[in-house]
Amino acid sequence: MRNQLISSAIVLVATLSAAQSQRQLNLMPVPSTVQLGTGQLAINQSFSIAIAGFQDPRLKRGAQRFMSDLSRQTGMLLKQDLAQSSSATLLIHADHGTEEVQSSEEDESYELAVSESSAKLSATNPLGIFHGLQTFLQLVKPTGSGFAVPVVTIKDQPRFVWRGLLIDVGRHFIPVDVLKRNMDGMAAVKMNVLHLHLSDNEGFRVESKRFPKLQEMGSDGLYYTQEEIREFVAYARDRGIRVVPEFDIPGHSRSWFVGYPELASSPGPYKIEPDGPNSVMDPTREGTYKLLDKFIGEMAQLFPDAYFHIGGDEVDGGPWDANPKIQSFIHSHGMKDNQDLQAYFNRRLLKILTKHHKIMMGWDEILHPDLPKTIVVQSWRGQESLATAARLGYSGLLSFGYYIDLMWPAWRHYSVDPMAEDAATLSLEEKRRILGGEACMWTEWVTAENIDNRVWPRTAAIAERLWSPEGVQDIGSMYARLSEVSWRLEWLGLTHRSGKIQMLHRMAGSEDISALRILADVVEPVKDYTRISNVKGPWDFRAPLNRLVDAVSPESDRARRFGDLVEKYIQSRYRDQATAGEIRILLTGWRDNDAKLHPLLEHSFLLRDVTPLSQDLAALGESGLRALDYLEKSESSPESWRVQQLARVESSREAKADLLLMVVAPVERLIEASARQIH
Amino acid sequence: MRNQLISSAIVLVATLSAAQSQRQLNLMPVPSTVQLGTGQLAINQSFSIAIAGFQDPRLKRGAQRFMSDLSRQTGMLLKQDLAQSSSATLLIHADHGTEEVQSSEEDESYELAVSESSAKLSATNPLGIFHGLQTFLQLVKPTGSGFAVPVVTIKDQPRFVWRGLLIDVGRHFIPVDVLKRNMDGMAAVKMNVLHLHLSDNEGFRVESKRFPKLQEMGSDGLYYTQEEIREFVAYARDRGIRVVPEFDIPGHSRSWFVGYPELASSPGPYKIEPDGPNSVMDPTREGTYKLLDKFIGEMAQLFPDAYFHIGGDEVDGGPWDANPKIQSFIHSHGMKDNQDLQAYFNRRLLKILTKHHKIMMGWDEILHPDLPKTIVVQSWRGQESLATAARLGYSGLLSFGYYIDLMWPAWRHYSVDPMAEDAATLSLEEKRRILGGEACMWTEWVTAENIDNRVWPRTAAIAERLWSPEGVQDIGSMYARLSEVSWRLEWLGLTHRSGKIQMLHRMAGSEDISALRILADVVEPVKDYTRISNVKGPWDFRAPLNRLVDAVSPESDRARRFGDLVEKYIQSRYRDQATAGEIRILLTGWRDNDAKLHPLLEHSFLLRDVTPLSQDLAALGESGLRALDYLEKSESSPESWRVQQLARVESSREAKADLLLMVVAPVERLIEASARQIH
Repeated sequence: MRNQLISSAIVLVATLSAAQSQRQLNLMPVPSTVQLGTGQLAINQSFSIAIAGFQDPRLKRGAQRFMSDLSRQTGMLLKQDLAQSSSATLLIHADHGTEEVQSSEEDESYELAVSESSAKLSATNPLGIFHGLQTFLQLVKPTGSGFAVPVVTIKDQPRFVWRGLLIDVGRHFIPVDVLKRNMDGMAAVKMNVLHLHLSDNEGFRVESKRFPKLQEMGSDGLYYTQEEIREFVAYARDRGIRVVPEFDIPGHSRSWFVGYPELASSPGPYKIEPDGPNSVMDPTREGTYKLLDKFIGEMAQLFPDAYFHIGGDEVDGGPWDANPKIQSFIHSHGMKDNQDLQAYFNRRLLKILTKHHKIMMGWDEILHPDLPKTIVVQSWRGQESLATAARLGYSGLLSFGYYIDLMWPAWRHYSVDPMAEDAATLSLEEKRRILGGEACMWTEWVTAENIDNRVWPRTAAIAERLWSPEGVQDIGSMYARLSEVSWRLEWLGLTHRSGKIQMLHRMAGSEDISALRILADVVEPVKDYTRISNVKGPWDFRAPLNRLVDAVSPESDRARRFGDLVEKYIQSRYRDQATAGEIRILLTGWRDNDAKLHPLLEHSFLLRDVTPLSQDLAALGESGLRALDYLEKSESSPESWRVQQLARVESSREAKADLLLMVVAPVERLIEASARQIH
Repeated sequence: MRNQLISSAIVLVATLSAAQSQRQLNLMPVPSTVQLGTGQLAINQSFSIAIAGFQDPRLKRGAQRFMSDLSRQTGMLLKQDLAQSSSATLLIHADHGTEEVQSSEEDESYELAVSESSAKLSATNPLGIFHGLQTFLQLVKPTGSGFAVPVVTIKDQPRFVWRGLLIDVGRHFIPVDVLKRNMDGMAAVKMNVLHLHLSDNEGFRVESKRFPKLQEMGSDGLYYTQEEIREFVAYARDRGIRVVPEFDIPGHSRSWFVGYPELASSPGPYKIEPDGPNSVMDPTREGTYKLLDKFIGEMAQLFPDAYFHIGGDEVDGGPWDANPKIQSFIHSHGMKDNQDLQAYFNRRLLKILTKHHKIMMGWDEILHPDLPKTIVVQSWRGQESLATAARLGYSGLLSFGYYIDLMWPAWRHYSVDPMAEDAATLSLEEKRRILGGEACMWTEWVTAENIDNRVWPRTAAIAERLWSPEGVQDIGSMYARLSEVSWRLEWLGLTHRSGKIQMLHRMAGSEDISALRILADVVEPVKDYTRISNVKGPWDFRAPLNRLVDAVSPESDRARRFGDLVEKYIQSRYRDQATAGEIRILLTGWRDNDAKLHPLLEHSFLLRDVTPLSQDLAALGESGLRALDYLEKSESSPESWRVQQLARVESSREAKADLLLMVVAPVERLIEASARQIH
């Protein structure tokens, strides 16, 4: 299968190169094979869709949703009813339905053939149809003569069966409507697993009817009712998305202990507040398992997916060490350490999960020789950990490298491949155990307000990594397509672009945010765990997230493009006047912006701490302009000037207000370049 | 009462002038009296609200909604629960509840007193509380030290009891969620009547269980179910908004005849399609009244409001003239013309409405001496018509001047006063019959996608006209406050700003819409009925509304501000260099934009017809820059040059692609000014 995929990638590259000269298809994720023809299929108000072959209500709803999406995308009022005859513009044909509960092994492939008069979409089952319809929507563009889809034949299937997005609803609750629109976004880029991290120290987010103190005492009142869960599970299923629930135990479980302190390894009382005591579950008490059995039984009904995630990460051994009863349990059972105790806990858990017909999933830490090969390991540690598991016979998926809360640029996530590094050395059989990956949206610094901005559009790059052939690697192409996906995602109700603007208005408290936008467009939040390590005292999940760092995009397009311009200018050996002009306009805007922004910064407490950033930006603008003057005049800049400027630039590199100025490096490039005299 | 209001207005002007020097409150609508103190009340995470005095579930929901709005506005996680004690930051006190069905005569006044430690909001009933909470939300601003509300005492009541927004859901269906967010917008600016124009030739939009062919055959499948109606009526009531239904008869009623052709004055068959035949109801058939009795009985249950609007406008007499049976009815009943026949129809209708406990409302045309004084006239004709009705003893409200589909600038609607013109000469008693006014959103050119953009923010200016004291007239102040209201309205889910951007992306089919935005920002749709008169053949309500004219704001802020800059520069006798610089930047941008925009215009059929506009804008930029050169050099421009430029400018004044370039007049000013040599 791998060889087959690699040859697909070659076909793709060949056909795409041919295509690019004619037209940029802008598909994301890139399909396995694309054969572009000549001509186009007009998409006008007589457009219709019909279903041949297998039919069921879900497929019908999917077709109607497609018509409604197409209507929104084009601004044309289209008939939402399906056409009866096979004379429809787009004919859908699925061979059969899917399993009643979507499994991780379904065939998701499809074939889309577009001619000048009609289009046909075929697939084994509705999942392939859903993916093909998304491809079709991406193909619809305004042309000189109307909306149209190019004549094309696409054969497509995913590289990995598991293409997930984890949303941590424990630390900050994410309401159902926000989950739904994010699922729409997932479907648009062909992701198929929504992994919900449903409990953590800060909140228990699911209604349990058997143990109501879990949500009532273990949250601030924000949790999903069982009715809501059934609703969004059905919503997901309609879009070919599986919902995998995670209840993170035995660590990360303070919220359980608020209502049920007897579950903890240390005496309570507990509260969800940030200064509440931490603990871990007591694996030595039979009562723990009795409760878990009933609770998991209840949840197994609610979440139909075959997989059940029990977390298992970052178990703090302290509370176990401090509890003599637990210590004596360890010794009397012949265990050598806390890891053995966790493995014991997991074995007991596995029995419960198996009883309730669930496959156990957990983070790297659950890996232990005592556990059978049926469990699935999700790796936050990396391909080495994943490869080790695969060699031992365990299935797994990669999340290392896909932590979108770390504020990495899209290209960095894009370059992480579940099959790379250590995994590349696996045998074919071992490789088959690598199911795919999941983007992880941990929400320490994310709320319902800015989650769209954190997830999108970067997650689309991860979706492409997990769907498209391994050979699809061109970062420039990825960014071009990501830009287009980005504004298209706003049609689905996502607010990653519009929401930012509103947050800037809030900070400014006024209509005119033009100067603030200029600054906001060239900064990015600090990376990795810098922000949390800057917190003094305990991290407070209730603290408002309404600062500039919370509003700006994780990745600055403006800064990236400025860097590209500077490179282009340098590559031209300083001859490209048009590019120099563009660079000058940007630098001038930055130099002059601080004076305009200053009154706003003074006025609003939400902005005051970005004052030094604005000053740095002005200074960078000034330095860059001077460097550009030297370069344009083909004069060498004085060394003393350069030393001074580079020192100033260096100080602009430091994070301020948890933000990084992203134009530092290109300005530095200009200053350094100005040393050389070119003729 | 009028004298009292006028003196309030004087107090207001006095207190506001004092206030402006300290702080711009930016309240819209401007309250009756504002007494600004010193200091401020901090709004932080410990903010709480409590209810003293009258309590009911609606008031409680209102208070919770306020907390949720405040949370969204500030980005702070606030407790949604009400505080128990009177130690709350904001204490609410209502004396008693409202009537079970909100009447048009309820007391809507409130008093808000904010000190440095707390705030108290008092009102006779929850309606005043809802208004006061909106005022409070508008007062919350980021300051140097945190979010805060200034120390202030506000006593406020509406000038008119009827402050409405009509939405025509007949011509284009507007879904429930769009209605809801528009009601949120209405509540934010203290409007209290949502008037739904529920049927017209193109669609019948309400489910009737007694006459299901009305909606089934009389619409394209888009209508409100009875459950949805109950839902949005309850939603409205929660916000102090009355819902007044309109079924427009005997004209504008083609959609009735599709299912029930026997109601029409001419033989059918009928269809809702644009080329379907028009007709009017047959008022001579007893069967017509039997059906109307049962139908109105059903609707009277569904819409609890005391008022029931029967339209009655623009009755085409042709079908009556052409029907011999109807003609003989007219003669045999001693009527002299079709107007008498309509009056007969209305008298029969009045009997039915009275039986179902409804007050009859209609447009100007229903006014007839045969009808009793209990009916209410809504005037699309103007204050003269309204004053005539008032003199005859009829109550009425003004919509002339508030037709927001005509694409007028906000200042023009703002300057229309129900009490002005002929109405100003009425006696005090007659004036009391003028209940207020309604902004009218007719939807020939409006869909669910762009309705927010058509309604907001301009409707807020009309809301102020109907709420604030008569003396509140400053257009500059209105625009400053309107700008702020505009971005605040997007918090409520309205898309009048963000939606435009998405539509531009659709037209461009690409990410980079910067050049398109420059053009879009300085054009406005053609005014009045020009667009419909440009249509060749019958107007088709199914035609896509996805062109630039459908996306741009009805009023260009950019053009208005450019005009202000030019005036300022001329007033400075060409000495204000900073302003000249700002003018130059804008003109340069426009001059250079066409070249950048050109590839996009070529590429997309949705944009091709704006090509001449883009060229005009470039030419205006060039002419303006040359004029500015002369002015800055204090040189007189050659007359021949001016003649040539002014001819070019003249041709830019013509509408193209149903759009007007709004910077023509200021550029003309510059060219003309360049004739004079100033030192």
